[in-house]
Amino acid sequence: MTHTAPTIILINPQMGENIGAAARAMLNCGLTELRLVNPRDGWPSEQANAMSSGALAKMPPVKVYETTKEAIADCHYTYATTARPRDMVKPVFTPQGATEDAHSRINQGEKVAFLFGGERAGLSNDDVALAQSVITIPLNPDFSSLNLGQAVLLTTYEWSKTQDNTALRDLPTGKSAIATMAELTNLYKRLETALEENHFFRVEEMRPTIVRNIQNMLSRADMTSQEISTFHGIITALTGKKTP
Amino acid sequence: MTHTAPTIILINPQMGENIGAAARAMLNCGLTELRLVNPRDGWPSEQANAMSSGALAKMPPVKVYETTKEAIADCHYTYATTARPRDMVKPVFTPQGATEDAHSRINQGEKVAFLFGGERAGLSNDDVALAQSVITIPLNPDFSSLNLGQAVLLTTYEWSKTQDNTALRDLPTGKSAIATMAELTNLYKRLETALEENHFFRVEEMRPTIVRNIQNMLSRADMTSQEISTFHGIITALTGKKTP
Repeated sequence: MTHTAPTIILINPQMGENIGAAARAMLNCGLTELRLVNPRDGWPSEQANAMSSGALAKMPPVKVYETTKEAIADCHYTYATTARPRDMVKPVFTPQGATEDAHSRINQGEKVAFLFGGERAGLSNDDVALAQSVITIPLNPDFSSLNLGQAVLLTTYEWSKTQDNTALRDLPTGKSAIATMAELTNLYKRLETALEENHFFRVEEMRPTIVRNIQNMLSRADMTSQEISTFHGIITALTGKKTP
Repeated sequence: MTHTAPTIILINPQMGENIGAAARAMLNCGLTELRLVNPRDGWPSEQANAMSSGALAKMPPVKVYETTKEAIADCHYTYATTARPRDMVKPVFTPQGATEDAHSRINQGEKVAFLFGGERAGLSNDDVALAQSVITIPLNPDFSSLNLGQAVLLTTYEWSKTQDNTALRDLPTGKSAIATMAELTNLYKRLETALEENHFFRVEEMRPTIVRNIQNMLSRADMTSQEISTFHGIITALTGKKTP
């Protein structure tokens, strides 16, 4: 069996709403295996279903365990989400570091799980000790409390980034395409000619600098072929002269 | 005036709870300037205060505007959080791409803002057109709906990462320190001697390989000096012989 995404394990969760929010965050980020250890209000939960916005219905059935040990038994590597532990020599990852590590492990066939504690008390020391590593989310030290759904969201979102190759910046150009340098230089020439004819360059010796500055301004716009045409249309309209 | 973090602008937000959740996410991630455009249920909001878990009380007063144009007037660059626009040639960033871009802009003194639409309708085309760029959060295409507080959290968390240099992985070693190679090789030698005396190496020609494998196993543990001592103690206990 191959494992394609981490398992999320909520240990001693209290409110069904938070379990539902966690499930919603998971499915938003492409994760579908949720386990619960000893949920206070039992399982299934109407509140969880409502808060999951349909996520729980689209995921495999949630498995419920009595102990953390049983819930992680088939996993190869587990990460406990908690504050930086003071007295355990255990790797501490950021969510990004942990999900990149998990990505490597899953690629070699390991089953990995992220453990989250209950709303009030978080994970017990025993649960943290069971895990091979810790995830600590670096937040504003003066205001760091995050609810369970938000903690799951940040972690699973980082996971989704390891699976995603969306460009950090993209310029969708629709039916047109980015203009070629030939189209751009042709526009520069046309504009320069029109400006010359309209006596824009009052001091001839400044002209090269001004032309370069205008080119720099326009080149930052990443114009499409369509926009180059529009710009030619603007020049035509303002000068009353068609493209030469 | 220098700007140290992006401004968050919620346009036509509906429920106070979601404004409060956004404020909480902001302060978690070190952002404190929140603006509202035309909040449906007015402002201030008891629901927002309750949901913010104290964040609103720790932030400068929220400013309320009637139009998006007024709310962004003093900003130099704005990012509209929305689905990928179909018919606008406008840069599309991921949250990470946008916050890295914002970090660069803030470093050169620009004031930047992230715009978020209301719960039901999102941002209008006019609001998206006003912004210089778009942030689209890449999520599971089959389950991508994110609530307002979650969208603000993912974006502001990415911002906080641009401000943070926490190591992706760290091994806090408490009062001890990572063992030196001398301590490690000394332990290897002691263990090898103990194993030899106890007839662990049955086939002499395999011994070099077995010794290397044991060293590889132990070297992956990143032991501290304290743990090296503990390991010596284990060997002493199991063999009944003190350190030579």
